[in-house]
Amino acid sequence: MIECVPNFSDGRRPEVIAALAAAIQAVAGVRLLDVSSDVDHNRTVITFVGAEADAVGEAAFAAVRAAQRLINLEEQRGAHPRIGATDVLPFVPLGTTTLGECVALAHAVGRRVGDELGLPVYLYEAAATRPERRNLADVRRGEYEGLRDSIANDPACAPDYGPARLGTAGAIAVGARPPLIAFNVFLSTTDVGVAQRIAKAVRHSNGGLRFVKALGLLVGGRAQVSLNLTDYRRTPLASVMALIRAEAMRYGVLVTETEVVGLIPEDALLAVAEAALQLHDFDRGLVLERRLREHNG
Amino acid sequence: MIECVPNFSDGRRPEVIAALAAAIQAVAGVRLLDVSSDVDHNRTVITFVGAEADAVGEAAFAAVRAAQRLINLEEQRGAHPRIGATDVLPFVPLGTTTLGECVALAHAVGRRVGDELGLPVYLYEAAATRPERRNLADVRRGEYEGLRDSIANDPACAPDYGPARLGTAGAIAVGARPPLIAFNVFLSTTDVGVAQRIAKAVRHSNGGLRFVKALGLLVGGRAQVSLNLTDYRRTPLASVMALIRAEAMRYGVLVTETEVVGLIPEDALLAVAEAALQLHDFDRGLVLERRLREHNG
Repeated sequence: MIECVPNFSDGRRPEVIAALAAAIQAVAGVRLLDVSSDVDHNRTVITFVGAEADAVGEAAFAAVRAAQRLINLEEQRGAHPRIGATDVLPFVPLGTTTLGECVALAHAVGRRVGDELGLPVYLYEAAATRPERRNLADVRRGEYEGLRDSIANDPACAPDYGPARLGTAGAIAVGARPPLIAFNVFLSTTDVGVAQRIAKAVRHSNGGLRFVKALGLLVGGRAQVSLNLTDYRRTPLASVMALIRAEAMRYGVLVTETEVVGLIPEDALLAVAEAALQLHDFDRGLVLERRLREHNG
Repeated sequence: MIECVPNFSDGRRPEVIAALAAAIQAVAGVRLLDVSSDVDHNRTVITFVGAEADAVGEAAFAAVRAAQRLINLEEQRGAHPRIGATDVLPFVPLGTTTLGECVALAHAVGRRVGDELGLPVYLYEAAATRPERRNLADVRRGEYEGLRDSIANDPACAPDYGPARLGTAGAIAVGARPPLIAFNVFLSTTDVGVAQRIAKAVRHSNGGLRFVKALGLLVGGRAQVSLNLTDYRRTPLASVMALIRAEAMRYGVLVTETEVVGLIPEDALLAVAEAALQLHDFDRGLVLERRLREHNG
């Protein structure tokens, strides 16, 4: 089983979002699991899965092609940074699939997107061909506008596939990575500077937690820390929340609410419950529904 | 689907515990889900389920008969209060089964236990025939030793089924109730008085939370609050923990760890995670595994 979680740079036009989902669903052998749009981020995260790499790659390609046609980066504005219509296209191993299989799929789809759609393609994370492209934030630095001005001249911006030339659909980051949690934390302040300082304190790149990426944004007039947890088993959600709350207290700010973007693995939430309840030696097999399923299976 | 969760007054002799489980497993149409023994409580909680009331009732009867033969209350000592070898025998509706169906089953099994095994049977909770027997703590007041001395003379102790006479297997409380969470909280003190005061503050009978029963015990040299949450949707586990922590602070005491006894519904743990993360509007359909199962189902 392979999961694909493309992020598209439109979270506002229902007809565009529907067309992107339809492009995926039109491919046999994949199942659409979730469509999460954020009006302030102006971004839609779609989650789909398939048992065969070919089908997942075909659906991903179809969605990228639809986004290229429907989203114009010259007009698009939102709270979330982006370099293209399909901003990121990660392939994620589920079940017994390996990360290596997802790396191969990222290369195959990336090459096809470059060749057939003429989009500049940057391979990131486990699929990266250069160490400086492993981190998505580095690939996306300067966003669409920065890349538009530098792609033709700056060798550091040379794409892995496709032309060194930007159209209105921008570029695309294609990658392979383990399952990730996308999570937004709203703060009791309108000061985006507080969110940015907290993001800096918790994210790995500035000395924070090992498997955390974070941005400070202003969303609907509220300061928000927008996070990616790239390995929730080793950097647990409960620890991230504890650190965010502690950092927020420096500024007399509290967390008002949080939200999950897309889907979240059940074990990540059970680990939060175990931390909150101080259940140090909990056997997750004691969850009634799991036990019933085991005995049915 | 009906769940049955008998509590037996032996958590120390492996051969006895195995014999009780075997008596249940020997009945066709039921599945044993869990066996949880506590050495200090000297108590074993077994969870089994079945689709047919007759099969569940037959297995329950077989276990009660085995416990009567194997457990002698004249010799049994433990931290947990008890009135009999099979101390409580609750039937719990799962899925589309109603509480009423479980009440009927409690009456049928109770009558058979009284008639064929000669044990005094007290019907409790939803199966109670007297209001003063709805609460299990009231049925169990005085424990085996108190009941032994009063059952023949005190009309308040007249059983619902079976003789008003106590053998070494004691009596049994048979009931029907919604799913329950059994949960133990260990404190950073050896003073059982602190656990008892906290139990009093959080339990419904003394003015605490609506769907909480609690006892203060000394378990393995540590003070423990032993809890039953009888409706975790209306009195959530996170609120119970918050109150226990606040009450413990009065005495300069902290919670050191907790444990779940038997099985726990998944939704109860997800609600704890949502509270801890301040996920106010979380859609549990966003749990990856649930979404995958829906799409497979």
